[in-house]
Amino acid sequence: MSIEIPKTMEQIVLAARPVGVPKPSDFRLETVATPEPGPGQFLARVIWLSLDPYMRGRMDAGKSYAQPIELDAPMEGGGVAEVIASRHDGFQEGDFVQARLGWQTHALSDGEGARKLDPSIAPLSTGLGVLGMPGMTAYVGLNIHGQPKSGETLVVGAATGAVGSLVGQLAKHQGLRVVGVAGGAEKCSYAVEQLGFNACIDHRAAADARQLREQLSKSCPDGVDIYFENVGGKTLEAIIPLMNMFGRIPVCGMIGWYNDGGLGAGNTEGPNLLPWLWRSILVNRLSVRGFIVSDHYEQFPQFLKDIAPMVQSGAITYRETIAEGLANAPEAFLNLLKGGNFGKQLVAISSDPTR
Amino acid sequence: MSIEIPKTMEQIVLAARPVGVPKPSDFRLETVATPEPGPGQFLARVIWLSLDPYMRGRMDAGKSYAQPIELDAPMEGGGVAEVIASRHDGFQEGDFVQARLGWQTHALSDGEGARKLDPSIAPLSTGLGVLGMPGMTAYVGLNIHGQPKSGETLVVGAATGAVGSLVGQLAKHQGLRVVGVAGGAEKCSYAVEQLGFNACIDHRAAADARQLREQLSKSCPDGVDIYFENVGGKTLEAIIPLMNMFGRIPVCGMIGWYNDGGLGAGNTEGPNLLPWLWRSILVNRLSVRGFIVSDHYEQFPQFLKDIAPMVQSGAITYRETIAEGLANAPEAFLNLLKGGNFGKQLVAISSDPTR
Repeated sequence: MSIEIPKTMEQIVLAARPVGVPKPSDFRLETVATPEPGPGQFLARVIWLSLDPYMRGRMDAGKSYAQPIELDAPMEGGGVAEVIASRHDGFQEGDFVQARLGWQTHALSDGEGARKLDPSIAPLSTGLGVLGMPGMTAYVGLNIHGQPKSGETLVVGAATGAVGSLVGQLAKHQGLRVVGVAGGAEKCSYAVEQLGFNACIDHRAAADARQLREQLSKSCPDGVDIYFENVGGKTLEAIIPLMNMFGRIPVCGMIGWYNDGGLGAGNTEGPNLLPWLWRSILVNRLSVRGFIVSDHYEQFPQFLKDIAPMVQSGAITYRETIAEGLANAPEAFLNLLKGGNFGKQLVAISSDPTR
Repeated sequence: MSIEIPKTMEQIVLAARPVGVPKPSDFRLETVATPEPGPGQFLARVIWLSLDPYMRGRMDAGKSYAQPIELDAPMEGGGVAEVIASRHDGFQEGDFVQARLGWQTHALSDGEGARKLDPSIAPLSTGLGVLGMPGMTAYVGLNIHGQPKSGETLVVGAATGAVGSLVGQLAKHQGLRVVGVAGGAEKCSYAVEQLGFNACIDHRAAADARQLREQLSKSCPDGVDIYFENVGGKTLEAIIPLMNMFGRIPVCGMIGWYNDGGLGAGNTEGPNLLPWLWRSILVNRLSVRGFIVSDHYEQFPQFLKDIAPMVQSGAITYRETIAEGLANAPEAFLNLLKGGNFGKQLVAISSDPTR
């Protein structure tokens, strides 16, 4: 039974490069003809679109770890979809896939980077969160670059986000003291009560980096051995003097700086900040290491083998914020950049049999 | 035949904590009674005193990787000495040692951190330079943290200094392209002609970080894989955008920032510098790692085994700047902080049979 293919589809394109904080007019919803798959391609209806902070970087013209999105081209992003027409030997109608699909209702793919999902393991949306790229980012950053040891203290920002929440839960399972940083009392309560963190500091309640540091210092009486860096900005500045000898700082994101022209809100050290950080790196023999999850895809099978059972058993919990419909994606993305999401930010594009 | 022990000895003490750049009045020469060794101690006449940038950090009250020097206490420093009286089982009169002796003509030691030198291997002064702590810093930082691979490009600051000159020569022997940064045309010529560097950039001829970067960029057509960081400041800022994917930045010093209140002279990015560096760490998956040579002393025998024959054969060359007499140590140190030395800065305190 073939699935009906609509004549037109919708997509959201980059209308303008943002100046500072992106705004709704930087995006534009367009209706275009639905393409037909050529040889070696398949067409899929998008079920879930993932929204992630890294997309902010792609909107700029500057050098990043990927090409910037062209003006008037569809916004890029990962998603979950169902194959509805295929001329690709590896994918059949009815297959569920996770792939780079873009902000659109339908997408062509040549199968590159596409991964089949088994809907019996977990809800399809987890393929974009705890069992997808964010989960893998947490797993790789913590285990390869963080080198956690039982009894150590870990701090992670965006503590209730898709990456931070898994980092903290995995570190707890490995016997570390885990302290989160999150925006707002509700997220902090969730981190402690639902995720099992030892403490979680509300960065919005701290006027500047110094106040945030005082709070963190109380929750980290033995200092900080691992700072899992996914936010930058005020949190990094707060952490610097709390790092222990031979501390590790895996760096996978810097949302706290994406929108600022410089050191941004809450900075108390001004231009001294870099020399000060450098001194700490030297004095405390810190290891700071940037990583991109796609450099470690060979570990994906091991990641799934380790984490999927923990998700099924409830040993690892996760949370999602869902926007309904493609037209609401820009607003949801802008909200994400302000930290308005609570857990993994998704956009529901079309019906999901596992929802 | 016992060596005559003088009744008094001289020492230089910390008279005041420097505000910014140290000045002569921060030091004071004193004459004190020569102590007698107690049980388990030896007394030595100091032959060579080593002057090193790290001493600047010890003059401040702040947290460093070692305790600060107390006011009115002797300045600390490594030296080479001859044992002239011993109540220590492991050291005899006539032994030559390298140890932490302080800025003084005679020193007591309990033998901790003292290492015997064989004067037949190389001149005694090399125990403070190419075959001592600076040489070991170069060896450890390059090999353990730098992970050099033939065909890669390495940049090192203070290129004619005790550390930088060995880093560059070792990297050349391992098949890397080596570009130095040094202060002044004479040092740059020496780096290329005597040390065999591919190029050396005069940072004094560059008005700011951007100009320095332009020069470096021309000398590093394939980008920079290893930046051996021993200076900080303008050179670091110049390097950031030149770093290649998976680049390594071993950090062992930051003389360029010791005297500045903040980002200092030649900075063109202002407070953007840290977010900009952070972005490069993330995008290029850089690894930045602080290290202190004393964490790696277990490798000292292997270091000597590898490097001493290269010094003896002339495959590795080195240069020294010698100040004569303890009273001239402060002036020589202030000159070192300004980059006025050329190669390893030593103070000749008493006669050396290998000189």
